[in-house]
Amino acid sequence: MQRYFIDEETVTLNANYQMDKEASHHMLTVMRMQTGDKIYVVTKSQQVFIGELIDNQNKIATIQFVEGLAENKELDTPVTLFVGLPKNDKLEWIVQKATELGASQIVPVAMRYSVTKWDQKKAGKKIERLQKIAQEAAEQAHRTLVPSVGNLVTSKEMAGMVQHFDQVCVAYEEVAKQGEKHRLVQVFEHLESGQQLAFVTGPEGGFHPDEITLLQENHDNVAICGLGPRILRAETAPMYMLSALSYARELL
Amino acid sequence: MQRYFIDEETVTLNANYQMDKEASHHMLTVMRMQTGDKIYVVTKSQQVFIGELIDNQNKIATIQFVEGLAENKELDTPVTLFVGLPKNDKLEWIVQKATELGASQIVPVAMRYSVTKWDQKKAGKKIERLQKIAQEAAEQAHRTLVPSVGNLVTSKEMAGMVQHFDQVCVAYEEVAKQGEKHRLVQVFEHLESGQQLAFVTGPEGGFHPDEITLLQENHDNVAICGLGPRILRAETAPMYMLSALSYARELL
Repeated sequence: MQRYFIDEETVTLNANYQMDKEASHHMLTVMRMQTGDKIYVVTKSQQVFIGELIDNQNKIATIQFVEGLAENKELDTPVTLFVGLPKNDKLEWIVQKATELGASQIVPVAMRYSVTKWDQKKAGKKIERLQKIAQEAAEQAHRTLVPSVGNLVTSKEMAGMVQHFDQVCVAYEEVAKQGEKHRLVQVFEHLESGQQLAFVTGPEGGFHPDEITLLQENHDNVAICGLGPRILRAETAPMYMLSALSYARELL
Repeated sequence: MQRYFIDEETVTLNANYQMDKEASHHMLTVMRMQTGDKIYVVTKSQQVFIGELIDNQNKIATIQFVEGLAENKELDTPVTLFVGLPKNDKLEWIVQKATELGASQIVPVAMRYSVTKWDQKKAGKKIERLQKIAQEAAEQAHRTLVPSVGNLVTSKEMAGMVQHFDQVCVAYEEVAKQGEKHRLVQVFEHLESGQQLAFVTGPEGGFHPDEITLLQENHDNVAICGLGPRILRAETAPMYMLSALSYARELL
């Protein structure tokens, strides 16, 4: 059954609702739904309803909320991923995969070794496109939350932002090479439900040591972590961290 | 420092060795190495040496093994990934990422819902290309083993092959939807070092129920596992399992 996010905070069971143009087009033209067909609808407050198509006049899909569902698809510790701006279209891929794996927010960071630079004029369009990728991935992954994609920030701005998180895990190859392998586990094991978590990963060239220093300065919530003995590419490290978090918090 | 796999089972410290044409070309022409420059060399028996370039005559790189290293980059429970043939170039991507994340072997499986079909005549070329991707990824990930990419098998052949593994984890969306979330942990917690593990993941359309039945028949080493509450795409499920295994065996 298809899944659609709607802009309402909350809705009432048995009420009717007109889907917006884009969703209506997808339902009626792309999916060729007929009256009586059903969809999942997710509100902004993460409530999930089954909606039944009751009208398709003027190319607008009107649905009725016929059933409320108690679904919990989200990590109990929301994660923001700060990701060093990678090459090519890798950021799109990271946004898609991080959404599937449960991230709540993704913030691209222009790091010292980021080869890619964003033209300030085009940044808005890029974020818009990434936000759309997150929405599609959230629908496909059956999430109840669409992760938000933040504006590009500098390493310094990021160092300020991470102060507001309960725990920050930085994936740093240099400590992994020295055999560090306990910090990630320590953080995951001491997390409490509802705590805000940040993951920080570098671009292809890794972090500049100054960026690590900046993250650590005066911050006792920052753990510099190894991710096992193999060297992971820039786009693989966030997937490893999110998968490990799901394993530790949702399966273990 | 660049890393190269050589075809020798084992080598002797201080001995000289001629790299093959391809590696020589990479060292001398692509990387423009000069005599005195150093590389990592990994033998077939997974020994790691530092090699120093001592001669570059006739476009062949001759090195001397100047130091032996005691490196352990491999999972202590070798994993074979049986992966339902996915669409487009996703298999290339899966081979690359599974190599980074520690798989020992990758076997593509023509499953009931695989949309892609391989032309028998071109299969050899495809495997060759995938094997090359695995080698490059293994070099980049600093592995001591290049995963082997097996020939395409049928679901029935796979069901026969998994009998020879100590433990088999099948990622099945339908059990995840019913809330299954303990099997993967149970398997990982009871693994013993050296045990052979198989992961089985489906193509975009998932498994046909008959394929699950076939895997389970008479096999008490097969665990049908959920991977958390979100629906993962075909290419994401193997990454989740490999990341979780590394977390459970190498960090936890």
